[in-house]
Amino acid sequence: MPPPPAAIGAAIADIDTPALVLELDAFERNLQRMTFAVRGAGVRLRPHAKSHKCPEIALRQVAAGAVGVCCQKVSEAEAMVEGGIQDVLVSNEVVGGQKLARLARLATRAKIGVCVDDAGNVAELERAARDAAAEIRVLVEINVGADRCGVEPGIPALALAQAVAAAKHLRFAGIQAYHGPAQHLRRVADRQTAIALATRKVRATKTLLEANGIPVETVTGAGTGTFLFEATSRVYSEIQPGSYVFMDADYNANEWSGFPDFEQSLFVLATVMSVPAADRAVVDAGLKASSVDSGLPQVVGRKGIEYAAASDEHGVLRIAPRAAAPRLGEKVRLIPGHCDPTVNLHDWIVCVRGGKVEALWPVAARGAMY
Amino acid sequence: MPPPPAAIGAAIADIDTPALVLELDAFERNLQRMTFAVRGAGVRLRPHAKSHKCPEIALRQVAAGAVGVCCQKVSEAEAMVEGGIQDVLVSNEVVGGQKLARLARLATRAKIGVCVDDAGNVAELERAARDAAAEIRVLVEINVGADRCGVEPGIPALALAQAVAAAKHLRFAGIQAYHGPAQHLRRVADRQTAIALATRKVRATKTLLEANGIPVETVTGAGTGTFLFEATSRVYSEIQPGSYVFMDADYNANEWSGFPDFEQSLFVLATVMSVPAADRAVVDAGLKASSVDSGLPQVVGRKGIEYAAASDEHGVLRIAPRAAAPRLGEKVRLIPGHCDPTVNLHDWIVCVRGGKVEALWPVAARGAMY
Repeated sequence: MPPPPAAIGAAIADIDTPALVLELDAFERNLQRMTFAVRGAGVRLRPHAKSHKCPEIALRQVAAGAVGVCCQKVSEAEAMVEGGIQDVLVSNEVVGGQKLARLARLATRAKIGVCVDDAGNVAELERAARDAAAEIRVLVEINVGADRCGVEPGIPALALAQAVAAAKHLRFAGIQAYHGPAQHLRRVADRQTAIALATRKVRATKTLLEANGIPVETVTGAGTGTFLFEATSRVYSEIQPGSYVFMDADYNANEWSGFPDFEQSLFVLATVMSVPAADRAVVDAGLKASSVDSGLPQVVGRKGIEYAAASDEHGVLRIAPRAAAPRLGEKVRLIPGHCDPTVNLHDWIVCVRGGKVEALWPVAARGAMY
Repeated sequence: MPPPPAAIGAAIADIDTPALVLELDAFERNLQRMTFAVRGAGVRLRPHAKSHKCPEIALRQVAAGAVGVCCQKVSEAEAMVEGGIQDVLVSNEVVGGQKLARLARLATRAKIGVCVDDAGNVAELERAARDAAAEIRVLVEINVGADRCGVEPGIPALALAQAVAAAKHLRFAGIQAYHGPAQHLRRVADRQTAIALATRKVRATKTLLEANGIPVETVTGAGTGTFLFEATSRVYSEIQPGSYVFMDADYNANEWSGFPDFEQSLFVLATVMSVPAADRAVVDAGLKASSVDSGLPQVVGRKGIEYAAASDEHGVLRIAPRAAAPRLGEKVRLIPGHCDPTVNLHDWIVCVRGGKVEALWPVAARGAMY
């Protein structure tokens, strides 16, 4: 693991760049806002750790009321359990003997859940749980509109739930119903419509399972863009938002009326490394420092200066005619286009408060993709 | 550093996924093709290590005739020197006291070059070299059409070269003239035209410097898409291609007539983790396993199956009506859209030959961005 880009107590100007900087005040307010938003709704909060990959953040989410976290990968879940999280849902299918053996071993150390959408996978999961003498909680993932993983709602979900319920070392724990694309529909009304449709599918499936003697203790899903709708649906019992702790340019572009006012807390700190022309400067953060899959990063607080192009290690800033040009060596804050893959590029989160580095948190699950 | 995704001697089917897989036969042929292509052209080969970030590969490039490597970051250069490379050009500007102190220290251990495009930066570089009692080779970067870093050709380059030449602990080593966007112009003729224009600017600048008593020992630049044109320009003395060792979907989309027949040697190995519908399957490699900045990955050898969408940890495959559907658990090879940022997501390169894992090479400079 590379050394951190700053020392505790250092000024922001002394952070080596490019670096991932977290404004602790804004981050803590985001935690509180989420706690407050779900209080009284009767749903459990299980934030998604794929966004931060950082046990230090997961521990603070649990301290703020979360029941545990979600992960997408077994290795992510291992890092979270190693970091002190006792309840992890792998909100994803896990396929193959090596991974399932690790998942089952992890389930002997912590409360572990996983999703399924295939009967053969249920059988392979049952063998892994039996071999490890573990109990694994299993949720049937249903497709509520994302068209990614998941069986169709209704009968196919019932058949799979019955297979899980019949497996000796698995415990049927409920339904996973996450609608990814809905998170980034810009208009609140469109997100609400998408989740209303998803909720109808979930409710029908839950009713069908229960009519067949299979209690559905958990219905889980939701992201930062829609969680209020799932939380008030009376059918979801758990929500999985992740990005709310950080925010990003893509989420900031959503309309948010009625939602908590989550603040941008995460930044890529960059240094101006070249000022070769009056209308152009170059920073040392390109697409290996800030993922561009959902758009370019945005420059903070510099009127007339725009991040116009990313190459591997460079970001070209376009400077408008009368804008104050950045100086060589100056530090610039960027809002990442998409927080999750950006965090995954970094080994450290440099936590700042009042202009000083207060803590250095390892991105312990950085690159954890197995 | 996470453990490698396979053991030496393992079959490809036993590699945990997603994993970065290098076909050694194809990789070695690519090394030979480059050696052969530049033999007799009178230029030195200094491959770019930003593509692979792997000293094991750099050592093989040197064994195949390279004089050393290029890097983009001081921390990358440190990893290369640590790995046994004795001659590194940081083909980029380095700004700020911390980084320059490290660069100067490195120059006491190996032959180190760096680029400049600012007189203030030359002064700060001179102080760092003096403080470390190091000699640093300095190249003036000129803008030959990329509109990124670099002073304009001609007089601005002369002024900067004079500043370097006057600095006691710096050695003026020549001109950096890299044309990034030209690499990906699809037509060979368009790439040739762009490099012909760049070459005219380089030649005029070299002539001007030499007329002013500043010998230009090195002119360096070029990438995989254009290197033949720089190599035969009679003004470039060194070329910097990087991607040729691996190739990627973006480079494969170029027209290549007259160029060596570089082969795709690098793959992201993925596992089919969900087959929820007749027209859709999902693999476990999304945009945290294969960078999508230059387009989606491509599925190898599966007619009618296309990688249609990437999310953080998922890749959705679209299956054409009469195509043979992939089975759950099946391994699929993907050609990354862009090799450089894809390699930077992984900690290990799994080297295979004849269907078996032959070696495991650490991506030692993964995440080296300082």
